[in-house]
Amino acid sequence: MASRAPGTSERYDAEELRAYARRTLERVGIDAELASPMADRLLDGDLLGHRSHGLWFLSTYLRRISDGHIRGSGEIEVVHASAASASWRAHRLPGAWVMDEATRLILKQITSEPVVTVTIADCSHIGCLQSFLLPFTDRGLLAILTATNPGVASVAAPGGSRPVITTNPIAMGIPTRSEPILVDQCTSVASNALFESYAERGERLPGQWLLDATGRPTDDPQVLRQDPPGTIQSLGQADFGYKGFGFGLMSEALSLALPGYGRRDNPDRHGQGVFLQVIDPGRFAGTDDYFDELDHLVGSIRADPGVGGEGVRLPGERALRSRAEQLADGIALHPDTPGRLRPWSDELGVPFPRPR
Amino acid sequence: MASRAPGTSERYDAEELRAYARRTLERVGIDAELASPMADRLLDGDLLGHRSHGLWFLSTYLRRISDGHIRGSGEIEVVHASAASASWRAHRLPGAWVMDEATRLILKQITSEPVVTVTIADCSHIGCLQSFLLPFTDRGLLAILTATNPGVASVAAPGGSRPVITTNPIAMGIPTRSEPILVDQCTSVASNALFESYAERGERLPGQWLLDATGRPTDDPQVLRQDPPGTIQSLGQADFGYKGFGFGLMSEALSLALPGYGRRDNPDRHGQGVFLQVIDPGRFAGTDDYFDELDHLVGSIRADPGVGGEGVRLPGERALRSRAEQLADGIALHPDTPGRLRPWSDELGVPFPRPR
Repeated sequence: MASRAPGTSERYDAEELRAYARRTLERVGIDAELASPMADRLLDGDLLGHRSHGLWFLSTYLRRISDGHIRGSGEIEVVHASAASASWRAHRLPGAWVMDEATRLILKQITSEPVVTVTIADCSHIGCLQSFLLPFTDRGLLAILTATNPGVASVAAPGGSRPVITTNPIAMGIPTRSEPILVDQCTSVASNALFESYAERGERLPGQWLLDATGRPTDDPQVLRQDPPGTIQSLGQADFGYKGFGFGLMSEALSLALPGYGRRDNPDRHGQGVFLQVIDPGRFAGTDDYFDELDHLVGSIRADPGVGGEGVRLPGERALRSRAEQLADGIALHPDTPGRLRPWSDELGVPFPRPR
Repeated sequence: MASRAPGTSERYDAEELRAYARRTLERVGIDAELASPMADRLLDGDLLGHRSHGLWFLSTYLRRISDGHIRGSGEIEVVHASAASASWRAHRLPGAWVMDEATRLILKQITSEPVVTVTIADCSHIGCLQSFLLPFTDRGLLAILTATNPGVASVAAPGGSRPVITTNPIAMGIPTRSEPILVDQCTSVASNALFESYAERGERLPGQWLLDATGRPTDDPQVLRQDPPGTIQSLGQADFGYKGFGFGLMSEALSLALPGYGRRDNPDRHGQGVFLQVIDPGRFAGTDDYFDELDHLVGSIRADPGVGGEGVRLPGERALRSRAEQLADGIALHPDTPGRLRPWSDELGVPFPRPR
């Protein structure tokens, strides 16, 4: 999951930001059809409150496109396909657009198939996983999404000290009759981005969430930059980190081995592998039973007043509240976003939107 | 995942134990066809080293059968079915047998479908999840298995103190060209069974793995027996327990909501819901690419000498070693197993096997 950073106090109009992102992407050579979902998904990052995966990332995309690491046009190679599945090789086409194509295919096929599964090899960064769940949960469909980067290694096996996988997130959209549950979490204690931001600021972590290169727990984010590097602890840390690593291996098998795009060829840091599966509850016990069970579960969770009166929280609840609030009041960008984009605005002749 | 208890020093012959389990199950009214997989899966629990889910559980099964909580014969109700899916309602038929039927169906359908998914509502206890993965990994297939019990609540939502779900395990069998990776882990710090065994022995836990009824961390297993009860911490505990709970919700949605057998009707403790999905890597990037990636990953993990020279460990490795060793040298039962079964041996006239 992306780290949450405080937003700017200034608010921006969502449609102006969307148009800005689209225009800059087109100016560096992305086809209009491909630029549109890229802009949409970056905006979703900000809307859902995952600001490090919002427009903050646009300048990274613009640089990668300019450097030839993201392709601006082309076709997806279909490796295998059936009515209920597809295995694609995306050759560095934009992740958000490839995911859009997968979403379209799945929404078509799920009308006749109970489960539809798509794997994607070597697309560019897809962004915030949560935003890809909504087209399915909006239609009462369950969605499982894992995606990871075989060019990054930052997590060691339990009992080890050498980075072998990365923070390998797993996401799942669980529709209910009201708001969906949107699980989106990495399988380590936190994401690479969070530790990079601590290291950048020269701060210590709130806890001993890392291991140094000899395997000792530490709160010093600089260990990730040393040679040999330290590693990020798996979810569960010393006592139960083998479980977090187990979930990480699940993500690795689904996102990399199944699409056939993993670590064996020592790839660079610019491609991702994806596993996306959608399940129609109507083809299992049935929609009524499914929603009745979910409503009951959500009701029992909400009935808990919470310790210290803060109430309990369901996955995705804060993100959806952030989206509703920002759609009404304007978008609060990551404080660094306008500054990161200024040189691109100048170079491409696309002025950055003014705050409201 | 089942807790690991030390085995007895005496060793038993696997075939004698299997025949014993089958005969006692048949004597209390289980059809021969159904008793056979029940005995096999209980034996698998011991073989794989999950002794609390081995023959230790046979006496529980015998009591539940006698009490009418497990049915000895009958048919599975098919709620929905397609070439790639089935949704079954098992009406308390033996979990191990229902899983055997699901395995047979999947192995047939996966020859023409890339992904086959079966959900099961209301079967009896299925036992050790890991043992159900092997028929698939042996054939180079990925298997995802979640199963849980809607009549047990022991885990609270993050920030809460009321038990709303249980320890909701998630398992995945990941085939490689050598031994498979067999992930099988609950989404809380540990299983209900572990805490029950500590409470039974009157011991404190090694860490503050529980919350008391007011939500305060504690190492006292007795809090789970109090009224109102304490709860088991989700994987990740104070800082990151929201992630463990997120995984728990995934298991809950797949194992209970999808099969339509959850908590809304306040069921007793004798039924389970199951989600079992099998994926053929040959229908995605292809078998060669899949295995090449997995072999590379496993190789890089094994290249880590481990901190303190203990080496690193892959999920399922210890279980498979335990199985190989016990198949060669005889089975080391949970120390309580012979004693738990003695009254049943007497009542049913089936003598318990002698140690080798």
